[in-house]
Amino acid sequence: MSEDLYQKGIDKIQELTQADDDNPTGFMDIGEAFEDIAPDLSKYVVEFAFGGIYSRSGLDNKQKVQATITALVAQGKPQIGMHVKTGLSVGLTPEEIVGCIMHLIPYVGFPSVLNALSVAKEVFAEEGVSVKKSAE
Amino acid sequence: MSEDLYQKGIDKIQELTQADDDNPTGFMDIGEAFEDIAPDLSKYVVEFAFGGIYSRSGLDNKQKVQATITALVAQGKPQIGMHVKTGLSVGLTPEEIVGCIMHLIPYVGFPSVLNALSVAKEVFAEEGVSVKKSAE
Amino acid sequence: MSEDLYQKGIDKIQELTQADDDNPTGFMDIGEAFEDIAPDLSKYVVEFAFGGIYSRSGLDNKQKVQATITALVAQGKPQIGMHVKTGLSVGLTPEEIVGCIMHLIPYVGFPSVLNALSVAKEVFAEEGVSVKKSAE
Amino acid sequence: MSEDLYQKGIDKIQELTQADDDNPTGFMDIGEAFEDIAPDLSKYVVEFAFGGIYSRSGLDNKQKVQATITALVAQGKPQIGMHVKTGLSVGLTPEEIVGCIMHLIPYVGFPSVLNALSVAKEVFAEEGVSVKKSAE
Amino acid sequence: MSEDLYQKGIDKIQELTQADDDNPTGFMDIGEAFEDIAPDLSKYVVEFAFGGIYSRSGLDNKQKVQATITALVAQGKPQIGMHVKTGLSVGLTPEEIVGCIMHLIPYVGFPSVLNALSVAKEVFAEEGVSVKKSAE
Amino acid sequence: MSEDLYQKGIDKIQELTQADDDNPTGFMDIGEAFEDIAPDLSKYVVEFAFGGIYSRSGLDNKQKVQATITALVAQGKPQIGMHVKTGLSVGLTPEEIVGCIMHLIPYVGFPSVLNALSVAKEVFAEEGVSVKKSAE
Repeated sequence: MSEDLYQKGIDKIQELTQADDDNPTGFMDIGEAFEDIAPDLSKYVVEFAFGGIYSRSGLDNKQKVQATITALVAQGKPQIGMHVKTGLSVGLTPEEIVGCIMHLIPYVGFPSVLNALSVAKEVFAEEGVSVKKSAE
Repeated sequence: MSEDLYQKGIDKIQELTQADDDNPTGFMDIGEAFEDIAPDLSKYVVEFAFGGIYSRSGLDNKQKVQATITALVAQGKPQIGMHVKTGLSVGLTPEEIVGCIMHLIPYVGFPSVLNALSVAKEVFAEEGVSVKKSAE
Repeated sequence: MSEDLYQKGIDKIQELTQADDDNPTGFMDIGEAFEDIAPDLSKYVVEFAFGGIYSRSGLDNKQKVQATITALVAQGKPQIGMHVKTGLSVGLTPEEIVGCIMHLIPYVGFPSVLNALSVAKEVFAEEGVSVKKSAE
Repeated sequence: MSEDLYQKGIDKIQELTQADDDNPTGFMDIGEAFEDIAPDLSKYVVEFAFGGIYSRSGLDNKQKVQATITALVAQGKPQIGMHVKTGLSVGLTPEEIVGCIMHLIPYVGFPSVLNALSVAKEVFAEEGVSVKKSAE
Repeated sequence: MSEDLYQKGIDKIQELTQADDDNPTGFMDIGEAFEDIAPDLSKYVVEFAFGGIYSRSGLDNKQKVQATITALVAQGKPQIGMHVKTGLSVGLTPEEIVGCIMHLIPYVGFPSVLNALSVAKEVFAEEGVSVKKSAE
Repeated sequence: MSEDLYQKGIDKIQELTQADDDNPTGFMDIGEAFEDIAPDLSKYVVEFAFGGIYSRSGLDNKQKVQATITALVAQGKPQIGMHVKTGLSVGLTPEEIVGCIMHLIPYVGFPSVLNALSVAKEVFAEEGVSVKKSAE
């Protein structure tokens, strides 16, 4: 019945992660590791989060991933890394990702920002991207 | 010595709030109400937050205000309203502002989002803007 | 397509709030106040939160509402009152609701607990219920 | 003077952890590791948390541990694992523990829930319990 | 049995609030408003918080109240006002109280600090104290 | 232009960490690891946090570091360790540091306090200091 919504979610994940049909959820963690204890979790992630919220109109993908990263920095969640990777995948530049984390200093303080930059730096290294020096 | 930085901050605030020299800080709360107990507070707000962080390269003003709103929603802070107003001032559409708040449901839960939408709705009414219905 | 899920959510809300078909969502706030700015919000509340999560097996309704109240106390959210009312509706005794809030002192500290008890006390007064004195 | 309260706390811990007099605090961390820097800490844990709060009437042990787990998930604290173990010890089924964590998605978001499920899954593996598949 | 501990807590509250035996808990909220729904709450506040934690050696009263205020600012709790009043009562100067709130900007961000300064300013007005201008 | 402010920040860091000109920032993390992705970060840390906030009048260094530690405990941030080290450097006794963490139990709950004490204990071991037993 809600198969359409599930497929819509999978399509959105592919779009965000540049995954293909051989590996339809790409590097996105949809909670498959919990198949044995919470078999419905991945359905909620795919249908609600990606088929629903990530598929809303109003924001483009870059704005959506920026909002995700910001929320995770403000909360200090370990999922920051995966979404920094998604950010690069949808076309956020490293400067935009760093800019978005640095922008939060006056709102969440230095410690949360330093912790998030550590994670971003690791992902940048893994993905082989670097931040362009600007005159500012 | 840091007069240039203070002026840089005031200029940024004017840019963000479309204020003019007669009312240089527009509707932005820079902590002037605390002149008697913390006379240096407004200096930190103007110089560090606006002359420094808001003047960084990397993000445009719309992205910066979106990041601010997102962080405040994630933390449940009452300053959301002022920054929704700033968002409209820098050109975020009501759809983008609502989109940015709604996007956070999977990350911060419904209660924080409902509280933030109440504030946004009030600001939209005050500012006389409305959200366009989309087919979605 | 997902009309079944929407109806499932409405049925669950009726069960939780003892509402009837004349007032199908009872006292539950499903975000209808945001019809003009986020017309899809109430759909997510009804379908995902109530048709999905609240309809999971594993916990009975009393346990589900207890978990909701606990999470809201830990986060200091204003929705505590509505869910205390839901708790009474599904058969949690006032002693259980207070017990659940008091139990959190060692985990979230006194201030959050005092704030939550204020809200619970108001709802008890509105609903005309009182807490039985126990010898303890 | 408060020896009775200390003993009451130890008794409660034994009841919760199925410990015996040879190992009176079972697997419960009462802060004994801090004997050298905060020698009064374990007294507060035993007397106040267990002799006091955990010994209140109003909730049964299963409800108390459910409330503990919920609060820790909402806050993202590493103590979740120890209290999942306590949950199993007092008779919460794995389905109830998972149900209680999954129920929080609409209130705290997916990341906190995913992190908590990882911890629960590990404890289930250590304790050799598994979650029954339900038709739902 | 624990009457001594209760009295120890009351004595500490009197010391902190400069209350006398006619009004033994002074302006301190010990949860008496919840006598009807949680009759044991005030006992926990008096015995554990004041008879126990506030009576520990290691910090003087000024340091203890400073720590309390700091924690409440970091969490955004409404109890800040009562403890600012306690701070003045134990001899913290308005400069120290403001200094302690302002110091948190790099750790918790501007919004939490602005909210806390509003509350402190109100208490200073009620208590008729003012902050001395310093050359800094 | 703001070179004076930068130097003021470095001087403050040296004062706090007992560093000398050969290693001007001592053990303080000023974000130098992010030179490649956020080259302006260390400037903000030095100029704003240390040249500005830490150089305010109103509190002495011991009070400032106590406020820092308290805020980090309340938020559960991993920077606690570095600031416990700073605390010892400016003359806070181990008893004061532990006292400040223990004092937070009624405000933030046991789990945050236990986590912070673990970090403090490690730093005490590294620095070779111990907590004096008191009769209390």
